[in-house]
Amino acid sequence: MCITCQHTIHRASHHFGWNRDFEPTLVAKPGETILFECMDSSGGQIGADASLDTLAALDFSRINPVSGPVFIEGAEPGDVVKVTLRKFHPSGLGWTANIPGFGLLADQFKEPALHLWHYDPASLAPALYGPGGRVPLKPFAGTIGLAPAEPGLHSVVPPRRVGGNMDIRDLSAGVTLYLPVEVEGALFSIGDTHAAQGDGEVCGTAIESRMDVELTLDLIKNRPLQSPRVTVTEPVTRHLDGAGYEVTTGIGPDLMTGAREAVMRMVDLLADEHGMTAVDAYMLCSVCGDLRISEIVDLPNWVVSFYFPRIVLQ
Amino acid sequence: MCITCQHTIHRASHHFGWNRDFEPTLVAKPGETILFECMDSSGGQIGADASLDTLAALDFSRINPVSGPVFIEGAEPGDVVKVTLRKFHPSGLGWTANIPGFGLLADQFKEPALHLWHYDPASLAPALYGPGGRVPLKPFAGTIGLAPAEPGLHSVVPPRRVGGNMDIRDLSAGVTLYLPVEVEGALFSIGDTHAAQGDGEVCGTAIESRMDVELTLDLIKNRPLQSPRVTVTEPVTRHLDGAGYEVTTGIGPDLMTGAREAVMRMVDLLADEHGMTAVDAYMLCSVCGDLRISEIVDLPNWVVSFYFPRIVLQ
Repeated sequence: MCITCQHTIHRASHHFGWNRDFEPTLVAKPGETILFECMDSSGGQIGADASLDTLAALDFSRINPVSGPVFIEGAEPGDVVKVTLRKFHPSGLGWTANIPGFGLLADQFKEPALHLWHYDPASLAPALYGPGGRVPLKPFAGTIGLAPAEPGLHSVVPPRRVGGNMDIRDLSAGVTLYLPVEVEGALFSIGDTHAAQGDGEVCGTAIESRMDVELTLDLIKNRPLQSPRVTVTEPVTRHLDGAGYEVTTGIGPDLMTGAREAVMRMVDLLADEHGMTAVDAYMLCSVCGDLRISEIVDLPNWVVSFYFPRIVLQ
Repeated sequence: MCITCQHTIHRASHHFGWNRDFEPTLVAKPGETILFECMDSSGGQIGADASLDTLAALDFSRINPVSGPVFIEGAEPGDVVKVTLRKFHPSGLGWTANIPGFGLLADQFKEPALHLWHYDPASLAPALYGPGGRVPLKPFAGTIGLAPAEPGLHSVVPPRRVGGNMDIRDLSAGVTLYLPVEVEGALFSIGDTHAAQGDGEVCGTAIESRMDVELTLDLIKNRPLQSPRVTVTEPVTRHLDGAGYEVTTGIGPDLMTGAREAVMRMVDLLADEHGMTAVDAYMLCSVCGDLRISEIVDLPNWVVSFYFPRIVLQ
């Protein structure tokens, strides 16, 4: 329950994809605080009793519902929506999957895999990963965005200038996100809540988890903004960096190849030294390991590094 | 002075580029600890009295000298050299430059620029950046590598499978680096010491600074390793993450374009909101801001984010 919220967007008020012609579920004034009930990214298809059969039967037309849209009074193209993320109310249940055809190493991991997580939504104590490891949690929303200017229905999968499925793992409580407005009323929606994710979300899924989100929507008039911007006023990795990192590298002239190589080598490291199957290691990398660009200037070879937090394995 | 060191590699014992036929300056036994006197990446050309004229007159044939090479007894192709970085002895003087033709935004920053840093090598207190900001310091070596198998002289600029100019900003004291051996004796060298750098080293230079480095060289026989690996047992960003980050994004189907856009937008942010010139902001980004890949799976658009630590501006 949210004491300071003026409105609640119920879970039933969700949509699939982005469209400037979607009917608003609420007209809000700038400055209002709203409780968004969000579904998980499977739209409730993967629950506590899910199995590989559930994954095989997944209806992709119901993937990644977002709650909204909210029409913000006075919002016009050229303005900026300021989103202050106030609080997350996680459900305690989550899932991570390797979905064939999706993910950075989709060519190597062709079989479906699924892990269900049970975590304490009050304490947010690190969550046990069956194959080995305890993952520190930090709830955030993977998809936060506005309707794009171009008419018609747009897939929810790719993020855009107006935000959307950005999967920036630091969009957590206390953080401010700025999004450029492209249509009248902005048409704000949010969903795809995660209990934890590393930079890259390399297997394609995080700890996907239904939660509710309290946030405030403000409007900044006539502010040019080319792409989403974020302000975080607290450290972002202290919940997981206490024991440092194992780091693997991909070195070469293509960043995508470098990223793939760095992740492949971490999967091998976790399999060789911690006895995991490759697909379990891959999914674990996705929920807690970070892809970083160590150098992008030493022509013609760049270094992409994958940082895996050692605390997970302790 | 290094009490536990068995050997000292003097600054005069340096070389330019990598070559399996370079004469070793020392034959070391596995397990020995060595003090390497390293030059800065200009090879001493940019000193305390340097100016833009110095930069214009830079002799590029003397760029990035590395101290060594050390022949490690018993090292053969297929082995791994384990480098334990023990201590850095920084000089207190550093420089950061925009060198025309070099750097992620070389097409936009065509004029030379130079900033000299004076820092306390004992306390390593954050260093004042003239145009605005105080940069937390963490000394490390940008170039650590072995000779590649392929005969002939290889440029020092690109990193390779055997390491080299990797510019991984966490190769600091207490860290272990593993490098695959390609030639008999491994032929280890180190240089390009930095007082601080962000992930990406986006303008092409860090806080370039002469220092000495104590390290131990060990040998692991017959260990397959496809590219360099690092183990860090401590947090890596607590010296600079206390006030969080400003984050800009580049969203689209190409990681290089995304990285460029994220950095351009941070340069604009620092210029607009903190009154810096664009080139000063660009150089500041290079010494303390991080390029991260937030998501690399939401086809067809990836998110590259640039994280600038707010503490620098407080």
